Amino acid sequence: MEAKKMGTPVIVLNMKSYAESAGRRGFELAKICEDVASKQGVNIAICPQQVELARIASLINIPCFAQHVDAVEPGSHTGFVTLESVKEAGATGTLVNHSEHRLRIADIDFIVRRAPSLNLLTIVCTNNIAVSRAVAELKPYAIAIEPPELIGSGKAVSKVEPEIVANTVEEVKKLHKDCVVLCGAGVTNGEDVQKAIELGADGVLLASGVVKAKDPKTALLDLIAGL
Amino acid sequence: MEAKKMGTPVIVLNMKSYAESAGRRGFELAKICEDVASKQGVNIAICPQQVELARIASLINIPCFAQHVDAVEPGSHTGFVTLESVKEAGATGTLVNHSEHRLRIADIDFIVRRAPSLNLLTIVCTNNIAVSRAVAELKPYAIAIEPPELIGSGKAVSKVEPEIVANTVEEVKKLHKDCVVLCGAGVTNGEDVQKAIELGADGVLLASGVVKAKDPKTALLDLIAGL
Amino acid sequence: MEAKKMGTPVIVLNMKSYAESAGRRGFELAKICEDVASKQGVNIAICPQQVELARIASLINIPCFAQHVDAVEPGSHTGFVTLESVKEAGATGTLVNHSEHRLRIADIDFIVRRAPSLNLLTIVCTNNIAVSRAVAELKPYAIAIEPPELIGSGKAVSKVEPEIVANTVEEVKKLHKDCVVLCGAGVTNGEDVQKAIELGADGVLLASGVVKAKDPKTALLDLIAGL
Amino acid sequence: MEAKKMGTPVIVLNMKSYAESAGRRGFELAKICEDVASKQGVNIAICPQQVELARIASLINIPCFAQHVDAVEPGSHTGFVTLESVKEAGATGTLVNHSEHRLRIADIDFIVRRAPSLNLLTIVCTNNIAVSRAVAELKPYAIAIEPPELIGSGKAVSKVEPEIVANTVEEVKKLHKDCVVLCGAGVTNGEDVQKAIELGADGVLLASGVVKAKDPKTALLDLIAGL
Repeated sequence: MEAKKMGTPVIVLNMKSYAESAGRRGFELAKICEDVASKQGVNIAICPQQVELARIASLINIPCFAQHVDAVEPGSHTGFVTLESVKEAGATGTLVNHSEHRLRIADIDFIVRRAPSLNLLTIVCTNNIAVSRAVAELKPYAIAIEPPELIGSGKAVSKVEPEIVANTVEEVKKLHKDCVVLCGAGVTNGEDVQKAIELGADGVLLASGVVKAKDPKTALLDLIAGL
Repeated sequence: MEAKKMGTPVIVLNMKSYAESAGRRGFELAKICEDVASKQGVNIAICPQQVELARIASLINIPCFAQHVDAVEPGSHTGFVTLESVKEAGATGTLVNHSEHRLRIADIDFIVRRAPSLNLLTIVCTNNIAVSRAVAELKPYAIAIEPPELIGSGKAVSKVEPEIVANTVEEVKKLHKDCVVLCGAGVTNGEDVQKAIELGADGVLLASGVVKAKDPKTALLDLIAGL
Repeated sequence: MEAKKMGTPVIVLNMKSYAESAGRRGFELAKICEDVASKQGVNIAICPQQVELARIASLINIPCFAQHVDAVEPGSHTGFVTLESVKEAGATGTLVNHSEHRLRIADIDFIVRRAPSLNLLTIVCTNNIAVSRAVAELKPYAIAIEPPELIGSGKAVSKVEPEIVANTVEEVKKLHKDCVVLCGAGVTNGEDVQKAIELGADGVLLASGVVKAKDPKTALLDLIAGL
Repeated sequence: MEAKKMGTPVIVLNMKSYAESAGRRGFELAKICEDVASKQGVNIAICPQQVELARIASLINIPCFAQHVDAVEPGSHTGFVTLESVKEAGATGTLVNHSEHRLRIADIDFIVRRAPSLNLLTIVCTNNIAVSRAVAELKPYAIAIEPPELIGSGKAVSKVEPEIVANTVEEVKKLHKDCVVLCGAGVTNGEDVQKAIELGADGVLLASGVVKAKDPKTALLDLIAGL
């Protein structure tokens, strides 16, 4: 299966392991994202729950990312997720080093280095500017800066720490000019998204603001108004 | 989706992360297992690659198990696999503590304790008789004894260390009488399976013998001849 | 160096990684424990910070335990702590599977199985009765039951959940009659200790109640009054 | 205790967890290093086994490094090693991210960022040039490049892959000009050391070549001839 390409600016929705994104509810959420992306002509990518990746990628026509991959080649690795299995599942790429699933630096390098040969995109999460610079040296497709103290806080990094976003964009693109830079942590509405874009970000990475919203479609429409 | 029940004696096929069990090839392997189980009237269960679990469980009519779950409740756990997501994916249960993916004892307890409330079956892997006894105290659905030195060796535990199988069956059932006991490690043909059943095992857990076989169907037919 | 023997009833003081137990302050704390044990004729054992283990064990004449060991044999394992190195450091044994440092079940088995050949004692921490039973099957020297929700709470398990202590003692000794049973979590004064002993425990495992006390000696004297 | 300063060029001896470097034998090895350093007027630093760190640092008058620290502040962390405890033990610094003990990138950042405030030096191990560049962005005291495939091979990186050493030196110093650059993996004799120095390295990191030598003193004397 050919992976769907991803354009920018983009909203990347991380479904995490919430009850609200498991099974049928995860599929319905994915369907909403697909509808909104198509009707509004905007870029939305989703990260389904790991066990749903192949099912959702085969049914939904927007880019799907794994939430995590393990730094192993195909082989005797029970319960691990390889880049190859993510590719075969029809995904476009994978999140790497999310704050809830940090990786060893040698493993980030392993994943980022191998992904292009499989035509997979890597979005590497970082927690500050120094780590963003370090990751930029590994040449991933994208970096998503998420100050850990703001994750799930409802206070958007683009509003309360705008200089982190602006500086990350500047520093990362100096080291790796084609790198897509996303920002996350606390992004919940269109104004937060708009501010992120103004600061130079190519998009946002978010989760609870949509997944746990009473009405995910309305939440999503509000967010894309900021693109 | 209602999970499929599992009967015994049973052959549980762990697809691991092999190239041969990813994507389409994994689906075809699952299809072969379904056909053989149906036509021969035997119990076969499969453990698809993690990202394929929901897709395969929705298309294949034999019990599907996750290869691993994480000891977390649904929530902000990017890239982790919950029991709930496995249930929603349509699986019958999960492997726990495979030798390639060992868990902390408190986490095994967490998973084994919560699974029944979700109507999920746990197959906990162990490496020797003492650990099998320890795990039996946690009351899982099944225990699969796999001496690590024999995994992938082509030398079946049921043939080269029959007393380990017989003693595990005896000790485990003394502590937890309804526990299903499987044996693994080196099982490759019908004779190995037959020997395991004679020693009191309720089935076998295997991987490479089928997944990496030139002709998986023939390999599977040979194995079930031993049931 | 000959390891010091440990008698019961016993107070085991886990120094953790507190600022108050590092370097000189850790040594002074160890000295207080040694003085109190000697003058009052009671059993006190200590678990110094890992990097201080050999220094303190060589200078202090009460049993010293490592706070943790890794499940590896001597070899190319940079930064890991082997049972052999703990023995050579002059320690009496090691804590295993503390709630802040949980281990895989196969690794607990590895450590508990090898310790006696080095004449080392293992104190395995557990979080509930089921896990205590499981660990008892592995035949450690001691089990320390610590319900995680009470650790650092100031509410002693022996007072607020006496049945957990009593039942653990009963169940563990049924499976492994010579097993020493300690209780921890929230133990802060002599009354808590006395209650633990009345419930059948052979001692207590504690940390902050002494290490972070304004006057550790007074705190310790209060505790041993309960023995 | 005042940490000993480290000069360059330097030989850093990682004692790992070998039987040959535990207890008394570890102390004797440290004593040999101290004698050779003093009599020959060369820089030698040692990384004792973790539980011996305070004892050896208090008795031996050359720089001592921890083999590993955990990325936690002082607190309730049973069995973990903090930078603070390493400092109080009298150490000069710590190895970080050794190939046998890889760390998450956020944890490397945490350790490297905090060490200078404690006047501790960090030597961060890396596996290739890209990772060396990434780590250089975090501004550690030193980087030790060790291609994993050569570790313990007896084939010195400075001889069989000289361009990796030369390029790492060049790339790292471009990003972080005061960074000390060491090379490791397979270094066993004075010629290997000399070649490393010629390629621009500030020293070597080695282990088995001395620790497991029949006569460690002779092995060490041979090595320093290359400085």
